[in-house]
Amino acid sequence: MKAAIINVTGYAGSELARILHGHPDVEVASVTGRSAAGKRLPEVLPHLWRLDLPITRTVDDSVDVVFSALPSGASAAALAPFVDEGVKAVDIAADFRLRDPAEFARSYGTAHPAPHLLEKAVYGLSEIHRQPIRQTDLVANPGCFPVAALLAMAPAVHGGLVRDDVVVDAKSGISGAGRGGLNTDVKDHFAEANENVVAYGLGGHGHRPEIAQELAGLRDADTARVTFVPHRVPMTRGIMATCYAPLRDEGVDEETVRDAYRDFYAHEPFVRVTDDPPQTKQTAGSNTCLVHPTVDERAGRLVVVGCIDNLVKGAAGQAVQNMNLMLGLREQDGLDRLPLYP
Amino acid sequence: MKAAIINVTGYAGSELARILHGHPDVEVASVTGRSAAGKRLPEVLPHLWRLDLPITRTVDDSVDVVFSALPSGASAAALAPFVDEGVKAVDIAADFRLRDPAEFARSYGTAHPAPHLLEKAVYGLSEIHRQPIRQTDLVANPGCFPVAALLAMAPAVHGGLVRDDVVVDAKSGISGAGRGGLNTDVKDHFAEANENVVAYGLGGHGHRPEIAQELAGLRDADTARVTFVPHRVPMTRGIMATCYAPLRDEGVDEETVRDAYRDFYAHEPFVRVTDDPPQTKQTAGSNTCLVHPTVDERAGRLVVVGCIDNLVKGAAGQAVQNMNLMLGLREQDGLDRLPLYP
Amino acid sequence: MKAAIINVTGYAGSELARILHGHPDVEVASVTGRSAAGKRLPEVLPHLWRLDLPITRTVDDSVDVVFSALPSGASAAALAPFVDEGVKAVDIAADFRLRDPAEFARSYGTAHPAPHLLEKAVYGLSEIHRQPIRQTDLVANPGCFPVAALLAMAPAVHGGLVRDDVVVDAKSGISGAGRGGLNTDVKDHFAEANENVVAYGLGGHGHRPEIAQELAGLRDADTARVTFVPHRVPMTRGIMATCYAPLRDEGVDEETVRDAYRDFYAHEPFVRVTDDPPQTKQTAGSNTCLVHPTVDERAGRLVVVGCIDNLVKGAAGQAVQNMNLMLGLREQDGLDRLPLYP
Amino acid sequence: MKAAIINVTGYAGSELARILHGHPDVEVASVTGRSAAGKRLPEVLPHLWRLDLPITRTVDDSVDVVFSALPSGASAAALAPFVDEGVKAVDIAADFRLRDPAEFARSYGTAHPAPHLLEKAVYGLSEIHRQPIRQTDLVANPGCFPVAALLAMAPAVHGGLVRDDVVVDAKSGISGAGRGGLNTDVKDHFAEANENVVAYGLGGHGHRPEIAQELAGLRDADTARVTFVPHRVPMTRGIMATCYAPLRDEGVDEETVRDAYRDFYAHEPFVRVTDDPPQTKQTAGSNTCLVHPTVDERAGRLVVVGCIDNLVKGAAGQAVQNMNLMLGLREQDGLDRLPLYP
Repeated sequence: MKAAIINVTGYAGSELARILHGHPDVEVASVTGRSAAGKRLPEVLPHLWRLDLPITRTVDDSVDVVFSALPSGASAAALAPFVDEGVKAVDIAADFRLRDPAEFARSYGTAHPAPHLLEKAVYGLSEIHRQPIRQTDLVANPGCFPVAALLAMAPAVHGGLVRDDVVVDAKSGISGAGRGGLNTDVKDHFAEANENVVAYGLGGHGHRPEIAQELAGLRDADTARVTFVPHRVPMTRGIMATCYAPLRDEGVDEETVRDAYRDFYAHEPFVRVTDDPPQTKQTAGSNTCLVHPTVDERAGRLVVVGCIDNLVKGAAGQAVQNMNLMLGLREQDGLDRLPLYP
Repeated sequence: MKAAIINVTGYAGSELARILHGHPDVEVASVTGRSAAGKRLPEVLPHLWRLDLPITRTVDDSVDVVFSALPSGASAAALAPFVDEGVKAVDIAADFRLRDPAEFARSYGTAHPAPHLLEKAVYGLSEIHRQPIRQTDLVANPGCFPVAALLAMAPAVHGGLVRDDVVVDAKSGISGAGRGGLNTDVKDHFAEANENVVAYGLGGHGHRPEIAQELAGLRDADTARVTFVPHRVPMTRGIMATCYAPLRDEGVDEETVRDAYRDFYAHEPFVRVTDDPPQTKQTAGSNTCLVHPTVDERAGRLVVVGCIDNLVKGAAGQAVQNMNLMLGLREQDGLDRLPLYP
Repeated sequence: MKAAIINVTGYAGSELARILHGHPDVEVASVTGRSAAGKRLPEVLPHLWRLDLPITRTVDDSVDVVFSALPSGASAAALAPFVDEGVKAVDIAADFRLRDPAEFARSYGTAHPAPHLLEKAVYGLSEIHRQPIRQTDLVANPGCFPVAALLAMAPAVHGGLVRDDVVVDAKSGISGAGRGGLNTDVKDHFAEANENVVAYGLGGHGHRPEIAQELAGLRDADTARVTFVPHRVPMTRGIMATCYAPLRDEGVDEETVRDAYRDFYAHEPFVRVTDDPPQTKQTAGSNTCLVHPTVDERAGRLVVVGCIDNLVKGAAGQAVQNMNLMLGLREQDGLDRLPLYP
Repeated sequence: MKAAIINVTGYAGSELARILHGHPDVEVASVTGRSAAGKRLPEVLPHLWRLDLPITRTVDDSVDVVFSALPSGASAAALAPFVDEGVKAVDIAADFRLRDPAEFARSYGTAHPAPHLLEKAVYGLSEIHRQPIRQTDLVANPGCFPVAALLAMAPAVHGGLVRDDVVVDAKSGISGAGRGGLNTDVKDHFAEANENVVAYGLGGHGHRPEIAQELAGLRDADTARVTFVPHRVPMTRGIMATCYAPLRDEGVDEETVRDAYRDFYAHEPFVRVTDDPPQTKQTAGSNTCLVHPTVDERAGRLVVVGCIDNLVKGAAGQAVQNMNLMLGLREQDGLDRLPLYP
């Protein structure tokens, strides 16, 4: 089967190329770029030297699946023609994640670019929406923070273990800020980002309504009470989401909670419930999500740590997992390599 | 005036030596070590080359003030003789921080080494206990995480803005783990700690009861409901404590809260309430604490970010600030240099 | 086919496990450890969770190939019985690299542990000794620095482009220091190694005679004049060797040199001659060596930059490449994945 | 005395502000910026909160000394009026470093902006040109790499210990690339620079002729044969220059060389000849240069390691040292604080 990657030159796009290069059944047939159009892929991204394709302005081959790694707001328009033709489409941007176009407008500061496609789009967190993903032509790949936060909280929220009052304190590597073309923001300069922790999005972040929408869905509610604070930490890859919520029944002990988590994820190929506190480094380059639920008995609180590689399970790997589901392939295809450690 | 540093070879001890070297009125007269005794200080710590003192087994000079940077549990015994002789003593270890010796035993796994001195000891967070510090001979220098968390939450807790239900999610540089003598734990190996975030202390951390004791004191209560989760992030210095608490009055807006914080810290030389999210790097090498209170109106929650350099305001700088108060010197002496940025 | 890894718990050993896990024709059948014996592999190295083997004291299965990742000096004795039985053996330690046992004794401070096997051993830099590797039962996997330095200089030395006077200035990530069991040297502590560059081995380093032996061999000489200075830089993986040598004919221009390099490596699957200065990050997790020859015309000097991932092409990947040759498999098997970037 | 800083918002400028803030006799009276003009200094650089000055377009006060941290090529024009009025001027850019304007044009790609001032300018490496610096009104502050390389090689070249054939292999932290305004080059993005070593300037770098000019001067020659290769390593601050040169007399031993170095620097307040290999981290935030000469007896080669903080001894600290000399102050004023370690 053939795949196209729209906007291959950012971190999500190049990571998709890397992963698909190792996929047994899917071949990267076409890659597009904007300023880099006209060059060969390895001229711009030398690490992809085994994938010597031209970067074109538009998809120049007939493909079975198309991925868009364009910025949010620009992605929907690029994907719409493919969706109309029945080509499977995975949007790595935010354009189809929020079911409510008004919430999209509030969060991303622009009117929704293709509200007519929202009905078609399935939120692509495979562990939660596997069946609809298998049947749709358009998947909204989830945001990196929501993947970590939702996989950390899903068993507890779905199982009714906690009250509707969640704090998500997330720590992300700097690749999460994107590559930013030829110029990048001074906050991403090595000398500024190194040896530094920065909290941001305190006034609001587009991943908060996404987390809220899905947490609400897990308990069949319309809304969820969520505080979300992302932090930048001086590493390239990795997200840890530390999630806090009051236990509904304060007497529940840690072992009971952990068993519930193990049951919930018993058949998941990419989620591991760990007995020891997980480390983001244990996920580097892999599609794994590590989840570690604990109970602070004194405070009656559930504390769950979730770890992913933000560019893999938080972006390109999740996208390939969705593609595998959409194309009827084995879900782990191309995704079964071990993480790079140390 | 003359100062002695017991166990100068760890990070807190060497940082004390660095700061005191720039102090206008206090001279480092004696430094002790264990395995390094017999060497000159710059042989062990070449960056202290302008402080060419012998490392001795015990304090070998008559001094006005003594600092102990020994491990918790070993510090009290070393300081007791000085306290008995009326020498001012600052304990950078945890031995005198918890007023309840039973809580000390639970937290540090050993019986309290000098319960008879507990009454004498003052908890050395200068911004909260300035007057008693001025009058005591024995200061318990606070833990690094408690400094960041307490300065972040003190105005809100003292002012009754929040309910008694605080989550402290803290991120610390790796120097917080200590230097560890000639051998160090494999978890502190650069290759393991780099490109990694790790949550720890999920089953309990000695700084939690310390935070709880002081938060309770701020509202004249006996206990406080606190969940505390520290995280290791791949940088050398710096702590950020992101603190979450439900607002008592959900209608309070951010500006009101920020004004309350500005009033509370109006005359503090080392605490700055910031309008923008602070960065740990903005404190590197300095005794400053940056505090940034915000309100998540949707969730009715106070979110406060506190930043310090864990080795300065979180250890050696705070110790010098306490020394200045105890000796009747200007509180900023030796501590007014700007941070190193970038 | 079945493989055993002796001492799987260090960085070279665990990297071998990771790579072999993705090998199409070879299965890891047995892994050994010393202090970790008795545990399961993922208990000690959680990132290897898909490789749930017991760690045993000795190889507990009949295997086709055995790798030793023991420390130099201890490796030969562990491999000797396998070599005697005709099992293919790859020594990742230094025990069989130097043909002269007296040089081994000088460099590693201990008598050679198995001089009778030296005749059998082939120096395992596949690009230089491919045929003998195919025919031997015992390969001495090269040191990490020699791989980078030799691949950078081989075309020039073999082609007679430079005089016998080479300076190798190498920069290595900290994983090169090894994992060091439960305790590690304080110099490897994150707080010491981060934000730091350190030169070492100025009084002599075991990789110098190894580089000299092979450079001499490339020009059919007995000795080579080489200065080698390794440096530690604050990253986990990667080696860059910047090599300097006076041109024999000062009029030779860069394009001529580059053509000679391209010819030399024309059929090599893992060496790429680059037009742009290469970056260590472009090799992370992959078995590629990037080589960039330049000419400083003013000084009449060849300057060549060589980059590898020290744990892959500098250790475990090179070992698998050698195994493929020894077992008659395709040389790229298990080694064709793209690097992880960024 | 009063000082002005032209272009305070880059790394050299802000570092100057930090250092001068701690100077006993000089006060920062005026700071200028381009895009930041109109703001207060702490709005742009929050770590300078104790220096609450307006950023103006031009120097708005009468001052005794002016520093320019403008880019090379733009600096001379800004300083010329001050020089004409007899105000002491220190140029941190490259405009007055090369005595030959044709060499400047070749190296910096633009005609020399003020050739008439070249005669007046003194190359500001205090250890080599102390007397002329004391007597001039215009100092050309040296480049960061030349400071490290020249202090490493000066005793050997001046003492005739080596032949005229020097290789300088330098490793620099990323702050050396400059801050770059609001946008920075993608190569400086944390995700690209982290976990990476990159060689650059292989086709020529402006600091090479500067090193050559001064090495030639040290042996009263017109030219010097120098190969210079800078490398970027993933840290914020610090330069290590590892310098290689063939010994004139191959029999000279290391102790003789080290004694010659100790004699040469016997009275220098900021240069330390070390017995152990130095580390860049031992200079962080301080004006010290560490120099470690060694001999590779087998190859008959001198190998010298020089370490500085590129923003202090390599820029702003050296500038203050020069200012102290020009103004007749104590050379160490404002520069005697110990480095920040770890």
